[in-house]
Amino acid sequence: MVINIKNFINSHVLKTKMNDFQDLEHIDGLSISTISADLYDKTRDDLVMFYFREGANYASVYTQSKIISENIKWNLSLRSKKIKSLIVNTRNANAFTGQKGYQGLKEIAEEVSFQLSKKQIEDEDFPRKVLPSEIIFGCTGTIGEKYPTEKIKKHIPDLINKIKYTQNKLVWIKAAMGIMTTDLKPKLAMEKCKIGNMKIKIYGIAKGSGMIFPNMATTLGYIFTDANLSNDILKKLLKKNIGTTFNAISCDGDTSTNDMVSIFSTGKIKNKNVININDKNIKDFDVSLHSVLLSLAKRIAADGEGASKFITVQVNTCKTQEDAKTIAFSIANSSLVKTAIAGNDPNWGRIIMAIGKANIDIKINKLAIKLGPIKIVEKGQLLKSYLEDDAAVYMKEEEKIDIVVDLNIGKKNFTAYTMDLTKKYIEINTDYRT
Amino acid sequence: MVINIKNFINSHVLKTKMNDFQDLEHIDGLSISTISADLYDKTRDDLVMFYFREGANYASVYTQSKIISENIKWNLSLRSKKIKSLIVNTRNANAFTGQKGYQGLKEIAEEVSFQLSKKQIEDEDFPRKVLPSEIIFGCTGTIGEKYPTEKIKKHIPDLINKIKYTQNKLVWIKAAMGIMTTDLKPKLAMEKCKIGNMKIKIYGIAKGSGMIFPNMATTLGYIFTDANLSNDILKKLLKKNIGTTFNAISCDGDTSTNDMVSIFSTGKIKNKNVININDKNIKDFDVSLHSVLLSLAKRIAADGEGASKFITVQVNTCKTQEDAKTIAFSIANSSLVKTAIAGNDPNWGRIIMAIGKANIDIKINKLAIKLGPIKIVEKGQLLKSYLEDDAAVYMKEEEKIDIVVDLNIGKKNFTAYTMDLTKKYIEINTDYRT
Repeated sequence: MVINIKNFINSHVLKTKMNDFQDLEHIDGLSISTISADLYDKTRDDLVMFYFREGANYASVYTQSKIISENIKWNLSLRSKKIKSLIVNTRNANAFTGQKGYQGLKEIAEEVSFQLSKKQIEDEDFPRKVLPSEIIFGCTGTIGEKYPTEKIKKHIPDLINKIKYTQNKLVWIKAAMGIMTTDLKPKLAMEKCKIGNMKIKIYGIAKGSGMIFPNMATTLGYIFTDANLSNDILKKLLKKNIGTTFNAISCDGDTSTNDMVSIFSTGKIKNKNVININDKNIKDFDVSLHSVLLSLAKRIAADGEGASKFITVQVNTCKTQEDAKTIAFSIANSSLVKTAIAGNDPNWGRIIMAIGKANIDIKINKLAIKLGPIKIVEKGQLLKSYLEDDAAVYMKEEEKIDIVVDLNIGKKNFTAYTMDLTKKYIEINTDYRT
Repeated sequence: MVINIKNFINSHVLKTKMNDFQDLEHIDGLSISTISADLYDKTRDDLVMFYFREGANYASVYTQSKIISENIKWNLSLRSKKIKSLIVNTRNANAFTGQKGYQGLKEIAEEVSFQLSKKQIEDEDFPRKVLPSEIIFGCTGTIGEKYPTEKIKKHIPDLINKIKYTQNKLVWIKAAMGIMTTDLKPKLAMEKCKIGNMKIKIYGIAKGSGMIFPNMATTLGYIFTDANLSNDILKKLLKKNIGTTFNAISCDGDTSTNDMVSIFSTGKIKNKNVININDKNIKDFDVSLHSVLLSLAKRIAADGEGASKFITVQVNTCKTQEDAKTIAFSIANSSLVKTAIAGNDPNWGRIIMAIGKANIDIKINKLAIKLGPIKIVEKGQLLKSYLEDDAAVYMKEEEKIDIVVDLNIGKKNFTAYTMDLTKKYIEINTDYRT
């Protein structure tokens, strides 16, 4: 699979244009390096390093699988308050690789530490020694295969040599492409905001694209900001915003061992000290972070394996948000709903089926269903005005399909994001390793 | 879709041979009629009547969806101790059809009652009047479409005229084919057993084949016996045996509004009175009923939409059966596991993933995984003796794939049945109504 930077332009349903990322520039305190470590086949980059010269505060959320990958074990063991580098490899998940997989990360961390220290002597841009315990890892790829420790170690000098001290659009896109597995396009998002009167950047990259349910499966998401925020504040902001963004997407109902979303703040912008997430100075950052996370999450769903349509499932007016979420995911994870959408078939009976199987108490005579602008069911009755042909035209013409369900029994809402289920999904997943 | 009786022979992975059903014969007290009511397109039968001349004791279990079809509402409203007729239509689920759908069933029941009473005058084989409230309905097909009341009513005289007073193999196969929707083959099973010293027959038919999770979705299963058993005993036996049979299968994780499994006993064999399901006289019947239900359930999974392989997921040595069931279905419902099997890819990492996401506490260092006879993981370690090529050969050559997981932390087991996920599934479900 050769991926060309130009290939991703206009290639998919959430059309990303190069211009969208025109503004992507340097985040002070961050350097990036992207290389091929031959993990795939040298036709693409597959090893990415994010290097924080002076360290970064950080927070992460991880998969809720009972079986977690070795890199997540490593990350959870870190006690360092600041992180110096995030290293992400693709092709191999380093999951169910046991003690050897963990040991591999240790060796790589030691090699990075050694090589950076060597570089430090030659180059004053490297201000001080990096400890192995200041390195955090992201891994994605096949589960259960031997972790390619030697291959990665061998490429560490090259990785460090290719560090770009400043970023522009292309550096960001290369990094986003370097962490992809079966993704068809790189996923980036950016926002600018203010903390107090200081201008702040929030940039993010992510990868999908199978196993995205219910909690960020096979997702890697990395957010970078030049703000100065403590680990505690970063953690609270990440937790607050993850539920309606990365945890609101589903591609195939499967969950990976490797999910990881992290935020890093280089602290280069000397904004006011924030000690409480209710502090009004952090409001703008909070909203912008949500926007970056949601944009990345939507891009993951839109680029879900085999996707031809991006689907939004909005479930409104429920008694609790949990009820709304259960119904939304029951619809978003239904193979029958997702194949109907792939076939441009407004088979709303399958939406009814998925609402029913969610096992949430509803009042049928209050139920309303819309497909985009088209009202289908109101007060539990199929509308006489409903014309299936209208719905079929909507489905055929739109690349973003909106399913809107109203229970009309409460005030809580939830929106889930997913994609249709196509033959392409089967192709990708029957042939993944071959 | 024209289905020929001969077509189903050797047509699928659980090879049914005509000879398997050589012994299917008459169940005393039961008559069957199968016709085309033009619900599809006259190329196939789509309306089936089971007529119990002297009534039958019965019990049913229904879908656990919060939205149930009109025929299930009708069935739940029946207060009659004996049932005179079961009428099953395909093509239309009579779900989300509201008061009109319910009214349609009432009209059809009245028409059946009227026509049978008329027939009674002409034919002494019809011993007494049938009340509308003695008729139970099975419906399967598209949800939300107007129920074809008039079409069905119009065909009632023909349905009654074509009643076969005795059954042979062909009558049974025709009935099993008459209740199919997207099934590729009819599903029948039979057992002979004894209650006390009296010989008893237990015959069953069923249909699948999407939306089969977790509780019999889009499944209709009908069991007929000539035993003399009370409604109470039938209910208890059905509930006791459904959990490890019809509720142990999953095709696509979806659940229908119309699921229904019923057992009818004509009471023509004057066996000993049984008032307790622990009575040793009912033991043989109990085992045989389980066998009939399991055979039908497996046939449904094997004929799941698009299936090319039948998959058994055996999860053993768990703390509770509920834990075992949760893990088994996490594997059986995983699109990634199911596509790997479709591609003959022994990607056991996906099994690990599915175990992990089940959210059940496990001890990784006790975990064992086998694929058929091939040991892959023991004590949480990939075995050095494991050769992926062996597993690939197994997957390629076998049509029945056995996944065996041992947690080694308890004594409880559960086996789930499913099929692989193929392009054919997508084809069937994107084109279902077109």
